[in-house]
Amino acid sequence: MQDLNYLIGMTAIAAFAMSGVLAAARKDMDIIGLAFMGVVTALGGGTLRDLLLNVPVFWVLDFNYVWVAIGASISAFFLEKYLRDENIWAAILYLDGFGIALFGVQSIDKALLLGFSAPVALVMATLTGIGGGLIRDVLAQRPNLLLSREIYATPIIVGSLFYLALLGLSGKTPLTSVAGIAFTFIFRALAIYRHWRMPKWLTLRSHFNG
Amino acid sequence: MQDLNYLIGMTAIAAFAMSGVLAAARKDMDIIGLAFMGVVTALGGGTLRDLLLNVPVFWVLDFNYVWVAIGASISAFFLEKYLRDENIWAAILYLDGFGIALFGVQSIDKALLLGFSAPVALVMATLTGIGGGLIRDVLAQRPNLLLSREIYATPIIVGSLFYLALLGLSGKTPLTSVAGIAFTFIFRALAIYRHWRMPKWLTLRSHFNG
Amino acid sequence: MQDLNYLIGMTAIAAFAMSGVLAAARKDMDIIGLAFMGVVTALGGGTLRDLLLNVPVFWVLDFNYVWVAIGASISAFFLEKYLRDENIWAAILYLDGFGIALFGVQSIDKALLLGFSAPVALVMATLTGIGGGLIRDVLAQRPNLLLSREIYATPIIVGSLFYLALLGLSGKTPLTSVAGIAFTFIFRALAIYRHWRMPKWLTLRSHFNG
Repeated sequence: MQDLNYLIGMTAIAAFAMSGVLAAARKDMDIIGLAFMGVVTALGGGTLRDLLLNVPVFWVLDFNYVWVAIGASISAFFLEKYLRDENIWAAILYLDGFGIALFGVQSIDKALLLGFSAPVALVMATLTGIGGGLIRDVLAQRPNLLLSREIYATPIIVGSLFYLALLGLSGKTPLTSVAGIAFTFIFRALAIYRHWRMPKWLTLRSHFNG
Repeated sequence: MQDLNYLIGMTAIAAFAMSGVLAAARKDMDIIGLAFMGVVTALGGGTLRDLLLNVPVFWVLDFNYVWVAIGASISAFFLEKYLRDENIWAAILYLDGFGIALFGVQSIDKALLLGFSAPVALVMATLTGIGGGLIRDVLAQRPNLLLSREIYATPIIVGSLFYLALLGLSGKTPLTSVAGIAFTFIFRALAIYRHWRMPKWLTLRSHFNG
Repeated sequence: MQDLNYLIGMTAIAAFAMSGVLAAARKDMDIIGLAFMGVVTALGGGTLRDLLLNVPVFWVLDFNYVWVAIGASISAFFLEKYLRDENIWAAILYLDGFGIALFGVQSIDKALLLGFSAPVALVMATLTGIGGGLIRDVLAQRPNLLLSREIYATPIIVGSLFYLALLGLSGKTPLTSVAGIAFTFIFRALAIYRHWRMPKWLTLRSHFNG
C-alpha cells in the first residue's frame, strides 16, 4: 500500500515535470533550461511548503523525486513534438490534476502530523499545488494562473476543505484519503473537460480598471 | 498596550492587502488570484524575514494574520470601484506607509531579540517592508519599485538607522519605538505627499545605457 | 591559506555584485534599486542553498559578505560608464566565472560536510551559481539564462561532477579543490571566450512551438 502510494506519487511528479517543460518550452531554450523548468514545476510547490513549515525539504531527504523529475523533463524535451499530440497532452493534464489532488491530501496529512492547525494545512496544500507552476511561469516570463480565470487553485481549496471536514467527522482512514483525493481530482477534471472558468461576478470586470 | 499594538498591526496588514489587490488588479483576474496577490503583499515580506532568520514563520504561528489579509483582500475585490476613489486610495497609501514603519521597528526588535546584529536587523526591516510588494509585482508581471525612483525603501532604511541609533543611545523604551515608527512614517508620508523622487545624481542617467 | 580563500571569495562576491548592477541597469533606476540588484545577484544563490539545506544563511552569520556586495554595487553605480568598457566588462565576466567555480566547490564541500549526498551537493552548487542571477533577472524583468542557449549552468554541473569524482578517488585535499575550481572556471572561460552556445540538438527547434 505504502509502495503503491510512493509509485503513484512519482508518476504524478513525472506528469508535473512534463507539463512544466511543455508549458515553458520556447524557441532557443536548451535542455538545461527546460529540465530546470520541469524540475521546478514538479518540486517547487512542495519545496515552498517545507520551507514555510520549517522542516527539511522533501527532495533533499529523498533524492528520487529529483531523479524522476529530471528523467521526465529530459524525456519531455526529446519527445516534445509527440507530447503536443492532443490526446497525450490531455493525459498529462489529467495526471497533473491527479497529482495536485494527491499532494494536496499528503500536504494536509504532513502539516497536521507536524502539529499545525487545519487552516495552515489548507494553505500548504494550496501552495504545494500551485507553487511549482507559479515559479516556472515567473522564470519563463509567462502569465501565471493567478492572472487568468482558470479553475486550478479552487479544486485544491474546496477539496482540502472537504477532506478536512471528513477528517473531523471520521478520522484518518484509507477511505477518507481516497475520498479527499477523488473529490479534488474530479472537480479539477470537470474544470478541464468542460473548460470551466471562474464566474463573472467573481472576476474583475474591465471597467474597474479604467 | 500589547493589545493595542496587535490591533494596529492587523490594521496595517489589512492596508497592505488592500493596496496589494488594487496594485495587482487587472482585467480577467478572479477573486482567488486577487486574494492571493493581497495576501502575498501583506505577508510576503515578513515571511522572507522569518525564513532568512531561520525562525518559524509568523503567520504559521498566528493564523489571524492570514484571516485578516484574506478578509481585507476579498473586501477589496468587491469594493474595488470605491477604493479607486482618490481620498480612499490616499488613506490606504498612508496606512501602508504606517505599516512599513511599524513592521520595520518590529522586525528590528525581533532580529535583535534573537541575537542578530544591528546590520542584519536593518536588512530584515527593509525586506519586511518591500518583500511583499516585490513578490506581488513579480507574480503580477508589473514593474516593481526597484525599477523606479519612488522613495519607498529609503524611509525604511533611514528610519531603521535612526531607530538603531536611538536604541544604542537610550535603550529600548516605548518612546524609542514610537520615535522610530514616527520617523519612518513621516519620511514616507512626505514622499507620498510631495511626490518625492530620488535625486538625479542618485539615478542612472539614460546615456549610460547606450 | 584560509585567509587567502576568504579574500578570494570576497573578490568574487564583488564581481557578482558588479555584474549584477550592470546587467540590471536601466534608465530611471536609482542607487537603492541597483544596489539591491547587485546584492541579490551576489548573495541570492548561496541564500537559496542555505534555505534548502535548512542551515543559517551565510551572510546572516558573516555580514561582511553584505558589506562587500553593497560596496561593490554602489561603486558599480557610480562607475557604470567606465565598467561598460569592453576590457573591464570582460574582466568582470571572467571574475564572475571564477566566482561560480569557487562557490560551486565551496557549496559541495558545505553540503557533504553537513551529511548530504553527492547529488544534493551537485544541486546546491548549481543553485548557488545561478540562483542570484535568476532572482535578479526576475526582479529586473529581463530574460534569464534558462531562456537562452548560453553555457553558464553547464560548466558548474560538469565541473561539480568532475570534482565529486575527484573527491571519490582521492579524498579532499587542497589539490582536489584547486582542480575542481580550475575545471569549472576553464570550461566557463572558454564558453565566454569562444561564444559557445548549446548545440542545436540540445536546443528546442522552432518548429516544435507551432
